[in-house]
Amino acid sequence: MWLVRINMTDRSYTLEPVPEKYKYLGGRGLSSSIVADEVPPLCHPLGPNNKAVFAPGIVTGTPAATSARISVGAKSPLTGGIKESNAGSSWANDLASLRIKALIVEGQPKEKGKFWGAYISWDASAGKPKIEFFDATEYTGKNLYDVFPQVYARFGERISIAGCGVAGEFRYGNAGIVFNDLAKRPSRYSGRGGLGSVLGSKGLKFIVLNDQGSPGVEIVDKALFDQGRKKMIDALRTHDITKPKGGLNTYGTAVLINILNEAGGLPTRNFSSGRFEGAAKIAGEAIFEGVKQRLGKETYNHACSPGCIIQCSNTWYDENGKEVASCVEYESDWALGANCGIDNLDAIAQMVYLCNAYGLDTIETGATIGVAMEAGVVPFGDAQGAINLIHEMGKGTPMGRILGAGTGPAGQVLGVTRVPAVKGQGMPAYEPRAVKGIGITYATSTMGADHTAGYTIAPEILGVSGKQDPLTPEGKAGLSRGFQAATAFIDSTGHCLFIAFAVLDIPSGMEGMVEECNGVLGTKWTTDDVGKIGAEILKRERAFNEAAGLTKQHDRVPEFMKIEPLPPHNQVFDVPDAALDSVYGEL
Amino acid sequence: MWLVRINMTDRSYTLEPVPEKYKYLGGRGLSSSIVADEVPPLCHPLGPNNKAVFAPGIVTGTPAATSARISVGAKSPLTGGIKESNAGSSWANDLASLRIKALIVEGQPKEKGKFWGAYISWDASAGKPKIEFFDATEYTGKNLYDVFPQVYARFGERISIAGCGVAGEFRYGNAGIVFNDLAKRPSRYSGRGGLGSVLGSKGLKFIVLNDQGSPGVEIVDKALFDQGRKKMIDALRTHDITKPKGGLNTYGTAVLINILNEAGGLPTRNFSSGRFEGAAKIAGEAIFEGVKQRLGKETYNHACSPGCIIQCSNTWYDENGKEVASCVEYESDWALGANCGIDNLDAIAQMVYLCNAYGLDTIETGATIGVAMEAGVVPFGDAQGAINLIHEMGKGTPMGRILGAGTGPAGQVLGVTRVPAVKGQGMPAYEPRAVKGIGITYATSTMGADHTAGYTIAPEILGVSGKQDPLTPEGKAGLSRGFQAATAFIDSTGHCLFIAFAVLDIPSGMEGMVEECNGVLGTKWTTDDVGKIGAEILKRERAFNEAAGLTKQHDRVPEFMKIEPLPPHNQVFDVPDAALDSVYGEL
Repeated sequence: MWLVRINMTDRSYTLEPVPEKYKYLGGRGLSSSIVADEVPPLCHPLGPNNKAVFAPGIVTGTPAATSARISVGAKSPLTGGIKESNAGSSWANDLASLRIKALIVEGQPKEKGKFWGAYISWDASAGKPKIEFFDATEYTGKNLYDVFPQVYARFGERISIAGCGVAGEFRYGNAGIVFNDLAKRPSRYSGRGGLGSVLGSKGLKFIVLNDQGSPGVEIVDKALFDQGRKKMIDALRTHDITKPKGGLNTYGTAVLINILNEAGGLPTRNFSSGRFEGAAKIAGEAIFEGVKQRLGKETYNHACSPGCIIQCSNTWYDENGKEVASCVEYESDWALGANCGIDNLDAIAQMVYLCNAYGLDTIETGATIGVAMEAGVVPFGDAQGAINLIHEMGKGTPMGRILGAGTGPAGQVLGVTRVPAVKGQGMPAYEPRAVKGIGITYATSTMGADHTAGYTIAPEILGVSGKQDPLTPEGKAGLSRGFQAATAFIDSTGHCLFIAFAVLDIPSGMEGMVEECNGVLGTKWTTDDVGKIGAEILKRERAFNEAAGLTKQHDRVPEFMKIEPLPPHNQVFDVPDAALDSVYGEL
Repeated sequence: MWLVRINMTDRSYTLEPVPEKYKYLGGRGLSSSIVADEVPPLCHPLGPNNKAVFAPGIVTGTPAATSARISVGAKSPLTGGIKESNAGSSWANDLASLRIKALIVEGQPKEKGKFWGAYISWDASAGKPKIEFFDATEYTGKNLYDVFPQVYARFGERISIAGCGVAGEFRYGNAGIVFNDLAKRPSRYSGRGGLGSVLGSKGLKFIVLNDQGSPGVEIVDKALFDQGRKKMIDALRTHDITKPKGGLNTYGTAVLINILNEAGGLPTRNFSSGRFEGAAKIAGEAIFEGVKQRLGKETYNHACSPGCIIQCSNTWYDENGKEVASCVEYESDWALGANCGIDNLDAIAQMVYLCNAYGLDTIETGATIGVAMEAGVVPFGDAQGAINLIHEMGKGTPMGRILGAGTGPAGQVLGVTRVPAVKGQGMPAYEPRAVKGIGITYATSTMGADHTAGYTIAPEILGVSGKQDPLTPEGKAGLSRGFQAATAFIDSTGHCLFIAFAVLDIPSGMEGMVEECNGVLGTKWTTDDVGKIGAEILKRERAFNEAAGLTKQHDRVPEFMKIEPLPPHNQVFDVPDAALDSVYGEL
């Protein structure tokens, strides 16, 4: 396997053997280590010294179920700290299959306004990957739904595509990195933290992979790997949340809308309430029923990426049965729905489509529009107004630039004090005042406000891995710490985080995950190593952030959550600072 | 004397005796101490827990020359740290005369969009100041040049006015606090750091003072005070820079344009060069000659505030001899001129007028427009384009909001990497790569990029207090530290910083300054105490900043200054991080 470096200053590339220190790393563990080792913490995120690192997970590209994740790392233009954001896509498998342990995009062209593509394929005669660069300026300034088919037409149907939309070209703090889904749509995103603008700042529009003829991922101990793989599949097929026709497969992640609303933890109208009167109209159940009605048949969800057996990705259709967008998952549904006071699934799906088309993160977009509504730019509940604001982002108007900058910066520019963000990054779909553990994760995560960094919702709301009272701060620092560490490991395996439901509740599932990794790498990890290895990754990320100027004072929820009680529980965020500091202090 | 608190939540006020710990403080020493003691470092700067503190200097309101400074303190909406910004105005004298040691504005009204005024006068029967509140909504959304006469008409000609313009109403990071000058113009500003938006966030449009019947400042040892005052006056009248018809009185502060241009340290076109081909056309000499030509006579400058004997404030007139703006001082002239590639004094003066009219800081405005020009919003050198951008700020359009947010935030929103700011605040008119000591001050000051925080230009360029090579980093950390400490003391006395030229070169001037303070306070300070007392103030400010999350990583110039050599010297900013850290590390 190789580390492959693309230098955008002169559009050259190199292949290097994988250094010993990176041999047993993958996914987030590897992307974060390379960023920590190579990116100057105080560099400008959009300057020549930042790097975008793409690393497939340890088992990505193997037959392990639900493991086609690609981790993208860089210094975040939004948080100013380290960032890892992962997505599921065939692109992840293809990169692994090309024996690329990590792809590192460096440098910056002198020319302004020009964009390039990199086409990576397998050079059979040389027995290694090769890269050709192409002028991609013709694909800029356009809807990704229009551009993706052109790229497929140019390079063939078996390729995979990563890149950025106009949001990245505009260098927005809210610019994701797009990947193709199984239907070749530009719909899978490493959405958070503005990574798309790191690509945009380097003039790199697309990275096209063609793994034809490539050798695929090497597995050191095939028998052990298969043993692990089966345990994992069994766990996923058994657990109520992840099994076929289970919660996720039937209702998608938006099954959480009613659950969180019931718990009083569904942030509504820019985090001014924990309960939304329109929740039922946008819930997963409503999506399921709506699709059934419009298609005339019961439809279960599909996989977002090859080899996923959870299959939680959905599609929303209009009244004529024509696709509006895929997928309307919980976070997008909430961000563009409840958080903006909008209870119309057609409008929400339209906004998801627009975010995908322009290259925007749906969470950041909804959180930012919520702040804009707070500022009075458009009223809460104004679906057409919200749609128009996304179009402004896509056009790069001044208002579009304000909102495209992301939640924290937009709040500052608009002079709003109720800005639900940590380290500048907008909060996802769980209210810290109603679910204290997730608030600790938002506050302390190395990533800024991020539910996936330590999903304590599992025990606090879903009864997975035990059951804990969401309203109490007691014991939640340790809970968040444990989840953050385990997550850093899972994000390194290449598995989707949703396997966590099964592996946390079913011990053989956890064993399976570790055995898969041992099978691929030849390591002898035990399940005890999951938290230890994860903690090491967190420490590395944390050290980068400290060198970038992020201190414990940045590990706080915004002031309004400490002084404004949230209906319906009328609680403030009452986790003591010392508890927040203990999350990493006692790592 | 009293501490007077205005609570804007319910528009009430209280008078408190001055606590022992504040007894010997004034100006910046007092405003910073109150902010450090009372404002939660992590509060939202525009929320109810921030406070705006107005403190006249120790000798302000006495006959001490050039001492009518008012320090305004708060948590800065721009830097996120502590802020002190001082201005010269009769308002400062009147506050001192009313025996108000510090005026503290607290709280926040529930209503949105309403603005109030506070009218403070002397209640002779009670023997103390009293405050009445009035509805000031009618004065909002308007040009301050139109509004000030209305306030004078309402309350009488002897009042003084402090307040905010539309920039503060919009809660911009670039919103100054305005004070009247001697001609009742809204032209004297505590400009830096967005303090006007702290007033705006509290719904406080104006604070009107009427000191009629007030007892004036108490002087403990009149003889000692008079002795000091005379020494100070002698020094000011002797030194080439400060004497009548000397450098400042003749050419104004813009005398520096040619000097800095010659030194290659005049930031040009958003800090992309240190030399401006149009410098001579906007220099102080050109202002002097231009005014002479348009008025048909030689005219020397006037005082900005009562009792100033330096008198460096000028006025620019149009071809018909009609006033355009007062005053076109060096920083404004540079910011709106060289930094934007504009060499037209009529346009620059027009922009100064507009900044005063809207309540904007001229330095921040010019630095931000420079960044906007870098982003291609309007071309460098486009005077009408720059004027239009200031109007956008005044109108609160989306582009106006972006620019009104200040240099750092605007750079982020516009996706620019060459952003000349420290802690978000735009750099003033000296290039760190050409004058290393001032770069250290910019980087490390508790205030964000601020030349007045430690004006090493004195020895590095002007030969005041010795002569040092501007290009060498050697010894400059200590130099900056010394200047920062001495400045914190001077900012506490109530004297204008420009007395420093005289007191640094003339030992009896320094003695005079200390004797004036001892005379007022009854203290027994020596000139050795100047640096010690100043250092204590800096430590207090620094502790606030650390608690607000500003670390040594924030004590850095932006990356581009370390990697882009600056013409004509083709130097980068080569001061080692360890030297920067030593400024406060060895305080």
